[in-house]
Amino acid sequence: MNKTASSIITLTTDFGYHDPFIAEMKGVILSIEPSASIVDITHDIEPFNILEAAFVIDSASKYFPPGTIHVVVVDPGVGSERRAVLIEAGEQFYVGPDNGVFSDIIRRLQQFRCYHITNESYMLSRESPTFQGRDLFAPVAANLSKGIHPTEVGPEISDPVLITLPGPYASEDGLIGEIVYIDRFGNAITNITAEDLKPFIGNCKVRIRDHYPALVNHYSESPPDNPACLINSSGRLEIFSYLNNAARLLGIRKADIVDVLRITR
Amino acid sequence: MNKTASSIITLTTDFGYHDPFIAEMKGVILSIEPSASIVDITHDIEPFNILEAAFVIDSASKYFPPGTIHVVVVDPGVGSERRAVLIEAGEQFYVGPDNGVFSDIIRRLQQFRCYHITNESYMLSRESPTFQGRDLFAPVAANLSKGIHPTEVGPEISDPVLITLPGPYASEDGLIGEIVYIDRFGNAITNITAEDLKPFIGNCKVRIRDHYPALVNHYSESPPDNPACLINSSGRLEIFSYLNNAARLLGIRKADIVDVLRITR
Amino acid sequence: MNKTASSIITLTTDFGYHDPFIAEMKGVILSIEPSASIVDITHDIEPFNILEAAFVIDSASKYFPPGTIHVVVVDPGVGSERRAVLIEAGEQFYVGPDNGVFSDIIRRLQQFRCYHITNESYMLSRESPTFQGRDLFAPVAANLSKGIHPTEVGPEISDPVLITLPGPYASEDGLIGEIVYIDRFGNAITNITAEDLKPFIGNCKVRIRDHYPALVNHYSESPPDNPACLINSSGRLEIFSYLNNAARLLGIRKADIVDVLRITR
Repeated sequence: MNKTASSIITLTTDFGYHDPFIAEMKGVILSIEPSASIVDITHDIEPFNILEAAFVIDSASKYFPPGTIHVVVVDPGVGSERRAVLIEAGEQFYVGPDNGVFSDIIRRLQQFRCYHITNESYMLSRESPTFQGRDLFAPVAANLSKGIHPTEVGPEISDPVLITLPGPYASEDGLIGEIVYIDRFGNAITNITAEDLKPFIGNCKVRIRDHYPALVNHYSESPPDNPACLINSSGRLEIFSYLNNAARLLGIRKADIVDVLRITR
Repeated sequence: MNKTASSIITLTTDFGYHDPFIAEMKGVILSIEPSASIVDITHDIEPFNILEAAFVIDSASKYFPPGTIHVVVVDPGVGSERRAVLIEAGEQFYVGPDNGVFSDIIRRLQQFRCYHITNESYMLSRESPTFQGRDLFAPVAANLSKGIHPTEVGPEISDPVLITLPGPYASEDGLIGEIVYIDRFGNAITNITAEDLKPFIGNCKVRIRDHYPALVNHYSESPPDNPACLINSSGRLEIFSYLNNAARLLGIRKADIVDVLRITR
Repeated sequence: MNKTASSIITLTTDFGYHDPFIAEMKGVILSIEPSASIVDITHDIEPFNILEAAFVIDSASKYFPPGTIHVVVVDPGVGSERRAVLIEAGEQFYVGPDNGVFSDIIRRLQQFRCYHITNESYMLSRESPTFQGRDLFAPVAANLSKGIHPTEVGPEISDPVLITLPGPYASEDGLIGEIVYIDRFGNAITNITAEDLKPFIGNCKVRIRDHYPALVNHYSESPPDNPACLINSSGRLEIFSYLNNAARLLGIRKADIVDVLRITR
């Protein structure tokens, strides 16, 4: 037995806020570990959008304390032969389907251990093969929170599914990236990090859909009708429009190309 | 005094996520019992839809531990003469208006005790007759969590309001059921249980709106554009379309008829 | 050190339920104070609507126990020179931007102390100036919950920003108020309180958009198609339509004028 440092369990799903599914998972967790502290990350992942879930859990999890157990259920293949996994990385735990949903975590942290969840004594007796969030992932997370060792859930494996995420790529003129997420305020977040951008700072233009938003430091530096860009709170290049909705203003959609162009003098 | 086994209080309402109403209920609960663990089931019940709330609380509550206190506020008659009730059933507690919202619980568990909540010492001093969720149900739940005995809230009664829920009914050809709930993924859930269906398994066709979805075991057994049906994670017959929205695809709405037709050879 | 009476931290934002922002704030809070009990008031404030947030936090906070710490992040000026403040009023704490979001609280409670948050040792090391909810307000709230004294966050100030909220005003005929909030059920809430209305009770008509809704005590006193008004659960005059949506029925919008007209006999 190896008591985890924390009893925090987070949930990230595409179940929405209308149906009883999330509550059923919480009931299962609290039946096994009544002192678990359950935190919703979001349940509004676009149905079946594994890439979006991978982005969200990677963004949010780094702000949680060591020992936190993250459950992610965005699972188009539920009931098929895809594996269920437990990943240990960065002193935290990740429980969910082996469909690439933990790709961003693994890419960022690099060091990880992955276990194939096969031990049925940590699952609910199977009533149904269609809701593993409730019958498998929730009870495994609750048992981890109670202190079982990760090796107890099943054999270690070395080949969790990784989804190839796009670029950014170097181009002749600079960098080619893309929009990976658009938030509630219409801010359009790219896959270009502060580090990617560093060689170009002071010497580049950013282009999206024939617009050239200026690179600034704060939202409030740019007037409301004048889209601009900055390195955002997650360390990524973001197109915004102060007090306005940049995505709507410029017609930006996910997967749109963003160019960083070196200025030739 | 009879300390309940759990300090979990769940909330199910039609208040939505925009207004301050739910937070006011939580503030009242935590003022009375700071160690209560409050879990949202959903606040997105269709306004005034008692049948939907009855379905949701019955689905979710069975996954919570003994002693859990469930508060349900879907209450078109607030401020009128309808009674407020506390129901004890299946080692859990249910607090809400006496308008049929606990019908599914009572039908499933059969054994219950019901109390008419009349003891004003467990209510907030009445500022307003329009928000009993905050002024009556929340403080009664918090006091229960603190350990008062159910008999302290008021006299036992034997006639809680029960809403007659539809079938399924036996027909000449098999069974006539209906769609009672459509979830976020467009899965259409019927009132036909695994037990209802048992006599027909291997020897029936399912019909909805002139479609005949095949009966399978897993979502992933059927191709995306080919609606099928299965016994879902709650033990009910459900029409689905793998990675797709069956309700949209087939134009299914709540209360649509679902036939189980015996195959004559 | 001055241990606060409660470890409850509430959150009110305009971040919505889709993005990882709220979860990042919760992760920061739980990293600093793992035993904090976090309650969502709402995250569905209209983006940048400071008046709406001021109304909601004032309505909800009065039902929370002494010592509760309320974090409000509706912050169009993030990253600009606007101050960050901690307000102590009514035995509770309020943390957020100094942009008027606490105006209703201050007006109602009158007695308050306000501190300009400048002590960087209670902030996250600044990665980004664009997300002070996570990097400044969340850690200050968590540190308060751990027991730091309010004076430790920075110097006391006496001039927090107050937004002038409209009337109601006395008119020749009675009172002129307006609609300040419309809830999920289409109930239209005015800025006219029970106290404002007291001199007119039994001797007035209420007018909105050429309709004259009757003043009643309970929602259920008026038939569904007949809009009426009452003093609601927050002590305000509210236009409603029993089991119906008054705002939709009468075309009511925020800022519409509501007249209380003295009846001359």
